[in-house]
Amino acid sequence: MKTKLTVVKIGGEIINNSDKLDAFLEDFIRLDQPKILVHGGGKIATELSKKLGIKTRMHEGRRITSKENLDVVTMVYAGLINKKITATLQAKGCNAVGLSGADANCISATKRPANPIDYGFVGDIETINSKVIDLFVNNNMIPIFSAICHDTNGQLLNTNADTIASEIAISMSKQYDTDLFYCFEKKGVLMDVNDENSVIEKINSEDYQSLKSKKIIHDGMLPKMENSFYALNNKVSKVMIGNTSSINNRDEAHTLLTL
Amino acid sequence: MKTKLTVVKIGGEIINNSDKLDAFLEDFIRLDQPKILVHGGGKIATELSKKLGIKTRMHEGRRITSKENLDVVTMVYAGLINKKITATLQAKGCNAVGLSGADANCISATKRPANPIDYGFVGDIETINSKVIDLFVNNNMIPIFSAICHDTNGQLLNTNADTIASEIAISMSKQYDTDLFYCFEKKGVLMDVNDENSVIEKINSEDYQSLKSKKIIHDGMLPKMENSFYALNNKVSKVMIGNTSSINNRDEAHTLLTL
Repeated sequence: MKTKLTVVKIGGEIINNSDKLDAFLEDFIRLDQPKILVHGGGKIATELSKKLGIKTRMHEGRRITSKENLDVVTMVYAGLINKKITATLQAKGCNAVGLSGADANCISATKRPANPIDYGFVGDIETINSKVIDLFVNNNMIPIFSAICHDTNGQLLNTNADTIASEIAISMSKQYDTDLFYCFEKKGVLMDVNDENSVIEKINSEDYQSLKSKKIIHDGMLPKMENSFYALNNKVSKVMIGNTSSINNRDEAHTLLTL
Repeated sequence: MKTKLTVVKIGGEIINNSDKLDAFLEDFIRLDQPKILVHGGGKIATELSKKLGIKTRMHEGRRITSKENLDVVTMVYAGLINKKITATLQAKGCNAVGLSGADANCISATKRPANPIDYGFVGDIETINSKVIDLFVNNNMIPIFSAICHDTNGQLLNTNADTIASEIAISMSKQYDTDLFYCFEKKGVLMDVNDENSVIEKINSEDYQSLKSKKIIHDGMLPKMENSFYALNNKVSKVMIGNTSSINNRDEAHTLLTL
């Protein structure tokens, strides 16, 4: 039987709130199996860009990463947020090691083609080096990944944190019985976006198609769902979407995705 | 016989110049034994602080690290510079892993007492975790340390990069025959600060006292010399001070320190 491993991804809205982040990290530590954290950015990068007079351009709700934007997200994600999370976990007795994709070549990516839209220094994941990630895990380290990867030619690339989490989970599934947990501000996927208690407890791929066609699941939720089903189709055991308190107490409302 | 290991420290003036940095990294890679890099900051942090309207206060030439300054150096040293160096080394085939002292608890420090001068979030090194650093080295990773440490209670601390380099070299000397190389913009310790060719080729501890009393060695050079002799007194095999090209070609002018 394979050892259990949990990959947890937290988004910006948790990182933006130091109380929420601290509560999450307490929950994360209590997961008693090997684990990996992937974190996104949050508003610090946007605020810093604004202060520096660096424009943030968007295309259809997606951020375009200029050279200046890349420097800002590298500083904020791989520097400030990653090291603060790592130091906080260390203080709580959790042997965290903060990493970017460039470190020990853990995650390589390719710059997204400039056609039809030039997203700038944005990467699409190429390879997850599960052997080196496993070396950390096997030596009782808890990898904490920021969403900065590299192209193996010296270029750093801003990469989607949801995708990093699913690709790591898939890659680690060769050796581990891997669960993937997307943590965000809501209790799960909601039937009614205005009703926090309308969590859909289970969604299979058929339900998903139906919810999507009825526009109950839309916009920003779609890539997360696509990543989730992609993970399930590639040997990840379980995918859950919910708020941070449900990573330990799985009786709490959350959405469980199944094929 | 112990395996050779080289600890190299580069300062801000190399980091500030991308051509110099690239040339240094080429030299660093050619060192054919296990190696560790420690890097300082450079002017990027000062420039970023200025842009953000964050004041940099100094006391007797030493920087006082406020909470805002700490965030800036964490972003710049542990984020931007550390990840750019790591990605560049990876592109050159060197399996670099960028670390801060908080990562895997590699280096812990204590906040410098506020009396008589409150330097703010500045750390004095407490412990080097040579076991975990050796785990990286043993697995063919090249640790790249930024000068950000932690106090094991969740606080990041700005720490002197020269001291980190000497403390790592001392700690690794238990297992390795360790050389320490301080790289900076000059060819070595100069007899005449205005004559680049007046490199003092060898300085022993007696010479040092004499050069210090004659004020030939003064100011910013003193802490580097203190760190060097401290390392030699604690089982580091060799300490050299010079410019980057001399790390491979030791026939080039540089200063060799001996007890």
